[in-house]
Amino acid sequence: MKIAIIGVGLIGGSFALALRRGRGDVHVIGVDRDAGALEVALQLGVIDEAASAEATASCDVILLAVPVRQMPLVLAQIASTLKPETVITDMGSTKQDVIAAARIALGEKISQFVPGHPIAGREHGGVACADRELFEGKNVVLTPIPENTAQAIEWVSSLWHSCGARVVEMPAEVHDGVFAAVSHLPHLLAFALVDELAARPNARTLFSFAASGFRDFTRIAGSSPEMWRDIALNNRDSLLRELTAYETRIAELRCALESSDADALEAMMARAKQARDRWMAGDLDGFRGEAV
Amino acid sequence: MKIAIIGVGLIGGSFALALRRGRGDVHVIGVDRDAGALEVALQLGVIDEAASAEATASCDVILLAVPVRQMPLVLAQIASTLKPETVITDMGSTKQDVIAAARIALGEKISQFVPGHPIAGREHGGVACADRELFEGKNVVLTPIPENTAQAIEWVSSLWHSCGARVVEMPAEVHDGVFAAVSHLPHLLAFALVDELAARPNARTLFSFAASGFRDFTRIAGSSPEMWRDIALNNRDSLLRELTAYETRIAELRCALESSDADALEAMMARAKQARDRWMAGDLDGFRGEAV
Repeated sequence: MKIAIIGVGLIGGSFALALRRGRGDVHVIGVDRDAGALEVALQLGVIDEAASAEATASCDVILLAVPVRQMPLVLAQIASTLKPETVITDMGSTKQDVIAAARIALGEKISQFVPGHPIAGREHGGVACADRELFEGKNVVLTPIPENTAQAIEWVSSLWHSCGARVVEMPAEVHDGVFAAVSHLPHLLAFALVDELAARPNARTLFSFAASGFRDFTRIAGSSPEMWRDIALNNRDSLLRELTAYETRIAELRCALESSDADALEAMMARAKQARDRWMAGDLDGFRGEAV
Repeated sequence: MKIAIIGVGLIGGSFALALRRGRGDVHVIGVDRDAGALEVALQLGVIDEAASAEATASCDVILLAVPVRQMPLVLAQIASTLKPETVITDMGSTKQDVIAAARIALGEKISQFVPGHPIAGREHGGVACADRELFEGKNVVLTPIPENTAQAIEWVSSLWHSCGARVVEMPAEVHDGVFAAVSHLPHLLAFALVDELAARPNARTLFSFAASGFRDFTRIAGSSPEMWRDIALNNRDSLLRELTAYETRIAELRCALESSDADALEAMMARAKQARDRWMAGDLDGFRGEAV
């Protein structure tokens, strides 16, 4: 099997390593705007060959692992030489926007594109951090489009299974709403807190006394600015909805605090703790809504 | 040395264990409203003896490790029998309020009270989690009052040094401002996010796809609701100032997002990432303000 990975960073590189372990017969072509990344990927044995986007024409699978705002450009680069038997998938954190870009770039070949999003990552990117166990036991969400054949979806699923991941399907708009809430908003909030405190005249004192709670709360603020700028912009509507809901919740909290409403504060905190403890214990039955 | 620990939970229990290791000659009396906690503390060898608050009269040191809104009650209980040679310190996360309560309860004996706050904790409380290494290499902030003798301050410092901690002094109002920013606000924000999402009709789906970023961002929402309700209320003014600053920052972010201002978003994220990376590397020299 010949596979092209466009965007040889943490995610693309980890996929290559995981697939090599899961299947023996893989030849990996790496494409990246950063020649240094390709060099490292070759040295680490992540890819077998560095090439340009056009060279992906001969591959069975093309995997797009670039920041989501790069997708239109990359899709345009591969569109003209794309063969009918090649399956394309992506690893973007937003899906409606990537599907829209793919429709424009691929035209009638859109059926070959099976959109996907692995729910795995680390705050430190780059192919040097690539880890063949990154997807082990993790969810990968596929958001198939009506044009996809069952075979193409099955093919992409089987690649992810080879990487040790669990594959779940959902509509792209559901995906974007869910991840705006549980991932994109927390990232924005963490970036905002660090930026706010770092700008203060007493920033040095503040960071001197920040401890493990702050460290964990802000871990995701160590993520790639380019990647998260793109996600925020490309999932803007869902993210703005989440931001509004959160601002409302914070305003309620402010009222409780201003009126020293001990019961309201404790009840809110107790509900949150109970929900989080339950989630950490893997017990989802107490949550509202249906099983996925 | 005879020491009384009032509030035998994670912090009080860890202090007892750390002190036992640091010094050989310690006899620990435990006081707690929860008889079960005292039973566990006796079984684990955290305390040597369970007693009532009045029994602390014979101790060299009394350590208050209760939620901050319990401080007035506990201080009142020990005040009448307090001997002049006994030193009192506390482990409360807020300081101006505890000092005010101590002034009322202790009257002229206020000089015996050296306010303190160890910057260490875990989201799981209770004496069963007590860990003699909890304070190893951690900061302990003392916020001495004018009435304290140098000897009393030195005495409390030496206890903390025996526990492996680093002792820093600052005024109580500075303490309360700093920790509102780097600890109390993040706790409030984490509780609020979990509570917001758990209340949704699709909560089960949301929590099914929440991953490691969400886990770390919300770790502190697993903390004790009683403890954090007390901290929020007792540091209300500083916390409201922080909440206002954060709401303003979030509103700016909303504007950038609404106008799809890619440069503003990326710049904010890049500043935050740079600050956090620098902090994680232990490099505080690039931050504004003076060394502590």
